[in-house]
Amino acid sequence: MSDAAMGSSSMFIRLPWQELKREFFRILRQTGFTPKKAALCSSIFTENSLDGVYSHGVNRFKRFVESVQNGYVRPDAEPEKIATAGALERWHGNWGPGPLNAIFCTNRAMALALKYGIGCIALGHTNHWMRGGYYGHMAAKAGYAFMGWSNTIANMPAWGALDCRLGNNPLVIAVPQTAPPLVLDMAMSQYSYGALERHALETRRLAVAGGYDKNGELSRDAEEIIASKRTLPAGYWKGSGLALLLDLLGVFLSAGSSTAKITHQGVEYGLSQVFLAFHGSGLGENAAIKETLEQAINDYMQSQSDSSGQGVRLPGTRAFETRQEHLSKGIPVHQTVWHEIKSLSMKKIRSKR
Amino acid sequence: MSDAAMGSSSMFIRLPWQELKREFFRILRQTGFTPKKAALCSSIFTENSLDGVYSHGVNRFKRFVESVQNGYVRPDAEPEKIATAGALERWHGNWGPGPLNAIFCTNRAMALALKYGIGCIALGHTNHWMRGGYYGHMAAKAGYAFMGWSNTIANMPAWGALDCRLGNNPLVIAVPQTAPPLVLDMAMSQYSYGALERHALETRRLAVAGGYDKNGELSRDAEEIIASKRTLPAGYWKGSGLALLLDLLGVFLSAGSSTAKITHQGVEYGLSQVFLAFHGSGLGENAAIKETLEQAINDYMQSQSDSSGQGVRLPGTRAFETRQEHLSKGIPVHQTVWHEIKSLSMKKIRSKR
Repeated sequence: MSDAAMGSSSMFIRLPWQELKREFFRILRQTGFTPKKAALCSSIFTENSLDGVYSHGVNRFKRFVESVQNGYVRPDAEPEKIATAGALERWHGNWGPGPLNAIFCTNRAMALALKYGIGCIALGHTNHWMRGGYYGHMAAKAGYAFMGWSNTIANMPAWGALDCRLGNNPLVIAVPQTAPPLVLDMAMSQYSYGALERHALETRRLAVAGGYDKNGELSRDAEEIIASKRTLPAGYWKGSGLALLLDLLGVFLSAGSSTAKITHQGVEYGLSQVFLAFHGSGLGENAAIKETLEQAINDYMQSQSDSSGQGVRLPGTRAFETRQEHLSKGIPVHQTVWHEIKSLSMKKIRSKR
Repeated sequence: MSDAAMGSSSMFIRLPWQELKREFFRILRQTGFTPKKAALCSSIFTENSLDGVYSHGVNRFKRFVESVQNGYVRPDAEPEKIATAGALERWHGNWGPGPLNAIFCTNRAMALALKYGIGCIALGHTNHWMRGGYYGHMAAKAGYAFMGWSNTIANMPAWGALDCRLGNNPLVIAVPQTAPPLVLDMAMSQYSYGALERHALETRRLAVAGGYDKNGELSRDAEEIIASKRTLPAGYWKGSGLALLLDLLGVFLSAGSSTAKITHQGVEYGLSQVFLAFHGSGLGENAAIKETLEQAINDYMQSQSDSSGQGVRLPGTRAFETRQEHLSKGIPVHQTVWHEIKSLSMKKIRSKR
């Protein structure tokens, strides 16, 4: 976040990442996480904040802790293998912490890919993985290509509809061998709820229509869209169709819950996710492939900018630049958000299920 | 196509599918296809027309034959296995007919999925597969889930750019166990070139902006967009990013050509494609999964229609309805298109490569 985008500077403070991580760790330990799990989980929330994905970092941390305190996320649960067909395995998430289950499944998909060229883990009954791009980066850094997605509770009307019946089911694709690795992390709504919340917090207008206002008109006002709950599928019928098919394919593979089933629970827990890793380098021609990829990226970057003057961007590079800034200047945190995190205290953990 | 959408009825004739198939077969035989390959290939062009995807059926046939006559597509070429890593195989398409290579690779991916749960074929140096949804339907009918995509020659500017540096790289996802099977087949542009051409032919305005006119303004006029070559990525930066990543992942897996490389050739041939099949039923819980899928689809269909009154649709169902109509009334073919097909005659096949 640039200083300008931070708005009234008095509302934001810059904190070194170490301080965020220490605070996250302290609270997760109090909330029932083992030292190892608290360290890994606090690291993910810190990394996401460092990359500028506050909505799945510091801004989301309080809600994550509350979901543990309310019994929807079980801090000590481990995923379990249900069935295997070789390079495709089905796992049960046991309602464990989404990011920890997702790291486990990404590693497991890579292990299968090392053996079979491709590995697929279908995971049911898990929880929100926070920032899907994290797992793409993780795989790409290890030399694997990656594709993964998650369903969510219904938070987007289908194209042509008024009421939310689809999740905005994020899709992640990562390709290694380029520097920095290219990682696409896209929700099926034109704007993720995280992006809408950030725009609302910063009182910034959206660049393009992101949903409907209370009068049913397309709108660029994030707050109005959050209020109407009518987010717009990216590409109208295209994002709508893709969200539906990703949900159904996730169910088909994981035997877990669909968006409809999750929505009928009333609270978002027990999600279905798919993790695909590809180990292409075993097939050879690696130098030629690397060259073709670099040529393709160079060609793309030579695009002539339209009148907006913004030019083109490679998915994932903004996070890379933001990280450099945050490492030197600290992570901007809204004072209210930080105050609420500092005030999080141990509550009795109860199961709602 | 409804009678109303056919516009001036004198421009269209209704032909039984058998007549299309017979004519396609005759011409393909003259163009160097073996009887078996001519039968399969003419069947694909007929099926696509029956489903209403004229742009990759009857309306595309002449161009397909010309690409064979010009030596870009080799009628007798067979795909060859280059390397294997178990459940992931790399094949070389030898510049054979795209639809025949694609059918082969879909079958091969299913064979691997039967053995490993998942199968992935990465195919380089192939040609346009026509309608990607065909392969999704094929897999779903056989009980497999499917994901596949192809790159294309550059035909879409990236978000923020003026010049075409991206393909509109279609993505196909199919899920079995539902009736009819759900098949999503989406180009990364808001409208495929096929859809733009159909709108132009029928002089119909697009439902939403599909690109830019000559003044650089967003436009709903298909003809203006075809002329400016500035199609709009579906979901702006989202379709743009997805098109880029699908291209790069295809290259990474197939060791084939990127959109940039294909574009530098000046003519679209030698594409890169990926075929993923999933055989989930080996993992069990099939009855429970089928029930969850049906519930999810029912829930989606209960969406409350917005003020357009159009309601929601399941991807693939329009094709199903169109097919029923075409089976009884015949396939509507533009007279000029049919005349041009009837006039196709054997030309000397020469290689441009």
